Amino acid sequence: MPLIRRLAVIGVGLIGGSLARILREKGEVEEIVGIGRGESNLQRGVELGVIDRYCLDPVEGVAGADMVFLATPVSTIFPLTASIAPVLDPGCIVTDGGSVKEEIVRQCESVMQSGTFFVGGHPIAGTEHSGVEASFATLYQGKRCIITPTPSTDPSALEKVGRMWEIAGSSVVLMDPVKHDRVVGAISHLPHMVAYALVNAVGGYDRFEESILSYSAGGFRDFTRIASSDPVMWRDIAVANRESIIEMMDLFARYFADLREMVEKGDGQGLQEFFARSKHQRDAIL
Amino acid sequence: MPLIRRLAVIGVGLIGGSLARILREKGEVEEIVGIGRGESNLQRGVELGVIDRYCLDPVEGVAGADMVFLATPVSTIFPLTASIAPVLDPGCIVTDGGSVKEEIVRQCESVMQSGTFFVGGHPIAGTEHSGVEASFATLYQGKRCIITPTPSTDPSALEKVGRMWEIAGSSVVLMDPVKHDRVVGAISHLPHMVAYALVNAVGGYDRFEESILSYSAGGFRDFTRIASSDPVMWRDIAVANRESIIEMMDLFARYFADLREMVEKGDGQGLQEFFARSKHQRDAIL
Repeated sequence: MPLIRRLAVIGVGLIGGSLARILREKGEVEEIVGIGRGESNLQRGVELGVIDRYCLDPVEGVAGADMVFLATPVSTIFPLTASIAPVLDPGCIVTDGGSVKEEIVRQCESVMQSGTFFVGGHPIAGTEHSGVEASFATLYQGKRCIITPTPSTDPSALEKVGRMWEIAGSSVVLMDPVKHDRVVGAISHLPHMVAYALVNAVGGYDRFEESILSYSAGGFRDFTRIASSDPVMWRDIAVANRESIIEMMDLFARYFADLREMVEKGDGQGLQEFFARSKHQRDAIL
Repeated sequence: MPLIRRLAVIGVGLIGGSLARILREKGEVEEIVGIGRGESNLQRGVELGVIDRYCLDPVEGVAGADMVFLATPVSTIFPLTASIAPVLDPGCIVTDGGSVKEEIVRQCESVMQSGTFFVGGHPIAGTEHSGVEASFATLYQGKRCIITPTPSTDPSALEKVGRMWEIAGSSVVLMDPVKHDRVVGAISHLPHMVAYALVNAVGGYDRFEESILSYSAGGFRDFTRIASSDPVMWRDIAVANRESIIEMMDLFARYFADLREMVEKGDGQGLQEFFARSKHQRDAIL
């Protein structure tokens, strides 16, 4: 028997479409309903066989679903959950793929009716592309998916969501939502803030008449690739995970100020130690 | 007639070895003498056909050369130039590949004897590997080489060095040494300082018992690749280009502080504009 009878995917793009594809490929879902605002994208999802049918209204679309996957921008996850919560079938599980968890999980748990369940999730996977056309069945293969239970999370709902991500090929890590937001704040949100600031700073250097960005070689381009990420998505993340991001930005700023101090003093030994410590830690995660 | 009769390469590694290989391949050099401190590397250079013979003593090695290429760490370029300057043949040109130029060019010019010439250079190319084994003839193909003449640079020496880099496949850009150090400070040295500080900051986060670096995914690894660079080389660069690096670090810190302000205030519109400006500038250099 498949794991899921009727899966409702809200937001049929790279994240939602890729989960739909792999669950169908593995025979672990009977029916997939796509929900979204862009009708042409949903029509394309049906043509590609990613979803069986679609619905523009979330309340209508989740009818009869035993699993709802929210793969929409973080700012929309709670409002959508609040709107569908009253109409869910008994036993239905709602889970999400948002990259911020503490506030979303608390808010979403608070609106669930008795006998329906919310489980927060965050698959650590993606590409720079978006839309259902960009989705593919192996996106989650060999990746990690962080699931963020709380003391009030239903154990069997948690198990089913974990099973779903294992079927998708991911290794599941359980983590407290607060810790999740710190970890992701450090390894993903902070680097994005740094990269965005770096490109703006170099682009804003006006001592010469031409932009010095034109001299950038491969190293600069690789290093700043994440500064080409979607501004609206990152605006939402920066607002939603504000507290963690501020904590991480301040931590970074202290290390950066220490390094500046050593450069100014010409402290060769201190610089070499600082760089060696970084290299050592970086090489350890290769 | 080949461009160069006898080329002396001081430092037969990735940079020096690759230039030797391409000049030989193009038939633009009659004889190549390798100079260095590591005899086994030099022996390997002879075995590989990168150099014809080698010499451990720079003063002895440059005898009879009409072109000397210094491909050694930036801290050694001036001392080496000072030691070989008195014994160079009339007409000999000394050039280098150091990534810092202002101070090196000024110092080196000051020790050249009448009738011999110094021309500063900086090929914008490299890989993460080092040593003569890592060198290859196409390293400079399609890359830029910045050459940094001053008012006292000899025009025909400048032309010959430019021709040498064009033969290597690079497009030659002439730039004032002061501007060079700012440009490279911005597009290369600053990103290294940022990456080193970022890895140290994330690695130093101690709110949880485990290191959060273990959760880093591909994005973090790509972004911090340059934080695995050689600590000794970067110590030398940070000391040699101190003034530019401090200027760039302060510029970056101002943009970073502005961004932090917007995150703290939850200024969604400001954040989106900041991110969009960065994305726009980044996409323009793709």
